[in-house]
Amino acid sequence: MHPRLTFALAVIEALAIFAYAVSGFIEARKRRLDAVGTFMVALVTAFGGGTVRDVLLGRRPFYWVEHESYVIAIFALSLFAPFTLRMASRVFSERALLVADAIGLGLFSISGTSIALEAGMPGFIAALMGVMTGVFGGILRDVLCNEVPLVLRDSHPYATCAFAGCGLYLLLVRLDVDSVYSVSIATAFILVARLVTFKLDVRLPH
Amino acid sequence: MHPRLTFALAVIEALAIFAYAVSGFIEARKRRLDAVGTFMVALVTAFGGGTVRDVLLGRRPFYWVEHESYVIAIFALSLFAPFTLRMASRVFSERALLVADAIGLGLFSISGTSIALEAGMPGFIAALMGVMTGVFGGILRDVLCNEVPLVLRDSHPYATCAFAGCGLYLLLVRLDVDSVYSVSIATAFILVARLVTFKLDVRLPH
Amino acid sequence: MHPRLTFALAVIEALAIFAYAVSGFIEARKRRLDAVGTFMVALVTAFGGGTVRDVLLGRRPFYWVEHESYVIAIFALSLFAPFTLRMASRVFSERALLVADAIGLGLFSISGTSIALEAGMPGFIAALMGVMTGVFGGILRDVLCNEVPLVLRDSHPYATCAFAGCGLYLLLVRLDVDSVYSVSIATAFILVARLVTFKLDVRLPH
Repeated sequence: MHPRLTFALAVIEALAIFAYAVSGFIEARKRRLDAVGTFMVALVTAFGGGTVRDVLLGRRPFYWVEHESYVIAIFALSLFAPFTLRMASRVFSERALLVADAIGLGLFSISGTSIALEAGMPGFIAALMGVMTGVFGGILRDVLCNEVPLVLRDSHPYATCAFAGCGLYLLLVRLDVDSVYSVSIATAFILVARLVTFKLDVRLPH
Repeated sequence: MHPRLTFALAVIEALAIFAYAVSGFIEARKRRLDAVGTFMVALVTAFGGGTVRDVLLGRRPFYWVEHESYVIAIFALSLFAPFTLRMASRVFSERALLVADAIGLGLFSISGTSIALEAGMPGFIAALMGVMTGVFGGILRDVLCNEVPLVLRDSHPYATCAFAGCGLYLLLVRLDVDSVYSVSIATAFILVARLVTFKLDVRLPH
Repeated sequence: MHPRLTFALAVIEALAIFAYAVSGFIEARKRRLDAVGTFMVALVTAFGGGTVRDVLLGRRPFYWVEHESYVIAIFALSLFAPFTLRMASRVFSERALLVADAIGLGLFSISGTSIALEAGMPGFIAALMGVMTGVFGGILRDVLCNEVPLVLRDSHPYATCAFAGCGLYLLLVRLDVDSVYSVSIATAFILVARLVTFKLDVRLPH
C-alpha cells in the first residue's frame, strides 16, 4: 500500500480505538471506578471484541499484544481519566465522539468479518463474528459495570447497521470486488447507516 | 448407526437447541431487547455452554460453526420473536418447554462429559465440564440480562441433576457399558431426575 | 528445589486458593445460592484468573485440570458451605483471611507475570496478564453475583498493589536477579503493600 494511505489508516484506527476507550472512561466515571478499574474497563471496551473473536478463531497474537503502545497509552490516559474526559469533551464534541465510535463500529466489524472469512468460516458465521468484533467490547464494558448491555436494549439500530454492512461486504466479496473497494464501501456503509439512522431517530421494534 | 436412529437423534438435538433458544427469547422479551439483542441472547443461551467447553478443551470447530443453518434459523426466529413466542406458547405448553429444556440439559451434559473424557480429562473434571456444557448457556444469558444466574440461585435441583447424571455416566463408562447404553441411560436419568424433582417441588438447602 | 521448600510452597499455594474460594463462599452466602451455585462461584473465584490467562496465552493444561484434588476439595467444602464458613470464621479471623487473600494476590500476580514472560509477551502486557491472574477470579465472582466488581470500585489499592509488584518483578528480571529472589521479593512486596495500605486506609482518588 502507498505509505501515505498506510499512515491514514493507522490514524483512523487509532481514532476508533480511542473512541471506544473513551466510552469506557465515561461508563467508569458514572460508576465512580478508581484509576485501575477505569483502565480495565477502557481496555476491555477497546480490545474485548477483537479478543473474543481471536479466541473463537484460535488466532494469535492478539492485536493489543502486538500494539503494546496502545495499551500503555490507555493506561496513561486512565491515570488522568477525569482530566482526559474534560479534554475529550472540550476538543471533541459529543457529535465527534459519536462519529469516531461509528468509524470504529464500521472498521472493526468489517475487518472482523474479513479475518473470519480468511480463517475459513462460512459466510453468515463470518458476518456474525464481524458484528461481535464491533459490539462485544461495549457488551463486556456494560457487563463489568453491571448494566444490561446498551447494544442489546438500545432501540437505535447499532448492531443492526453492522450486520447490514457485513452482509453487504459478503456480497461484494462474492462479486469478486477488489478488497480495497469492498472494505471501504462496506465500512462507509456502516458509518453512514449508523449516523443517518441516529440522526433521523429511527427505532427498532421490540 | 442406523439412519433412522441418526435422524431421531438429530430431531431430539434440534428440539433441545430450540428449547434453549426459546428460554433466551423469553428472557430477552422481559428485558424488552430489540431483535438483534434477542438474537444474541438466544444464540448465547443455545450455544454458550458448548462453546465455553470447546474453548477450555482447545477444540475446534465449534458446533454452531459446523451447523450454520441452526444459527440462521435462530436469527430468523429472533426477527419474529414476539410472534415466535406466541406460536411457541400455543403449540407447546409451558410443560412441553420444561421437558424440552430437561432433554437439553441431559443431552448437553452427557455429551459434554463424553467429549471431555475423550480429550483426556480426569473423571471429576470431565463431569464438571459436562455440567458446564449443560448450564453455562443459561448462566451467560442471565449475565447478559443483568440477573443473578437462575441456575445458581434457584433452589430446585437443576445443575445438581446434571451432576448426578454425569457421575452415573462416569460409573457406566468405568463398568465398560456400551456407549449407546451409557449415554442413553445417563441422559434419561437427568431428564427424569429434573422432571420428578421439579414436580415434587424438591428444594436444595441454601 | 529443596523438598522442604517445595512443600512449603505447596502449602502457601493451597492457603491462597482456599482464601479465594472462601471469598466465593461468602459472596454466594450473601446471595443465598444453593450448594451447586456456591461450588461454581467458589471455583470461578479460585481458578478464574489463571484460566483466563491460560486461554489468552493458549496454554494447556489448566491448573485445575492438573490439580483435580483441589476441585474436589472445593466441591466437598461447598456442600457444607455454611458449616465451612462458620469453621473458617472460628479458626481464621477476618484478619487471617485478609492476609491469605493478600498472599494469593501476590502469588498469582507474580506467577502470572512470569508465565506470560516465558510465553514471549512484552513486559507491560506480561504485567497486565499477571494482574489479571490475581484479580480476574474476583471479577468473575462479582459478575456472576450481579455486582460491580469490588476490585474495580473499591478505592483501597488492590489491583494497584499487584501492578506495582509486577512492575518491580519486571525490573528485577531485567537486572538478572536470580528467579528465586525476584519472585519472592515481588510477591512479598505485593503482600506488604496490600496490608500496609489497607491498615493505613490509603484511598485512591476516583
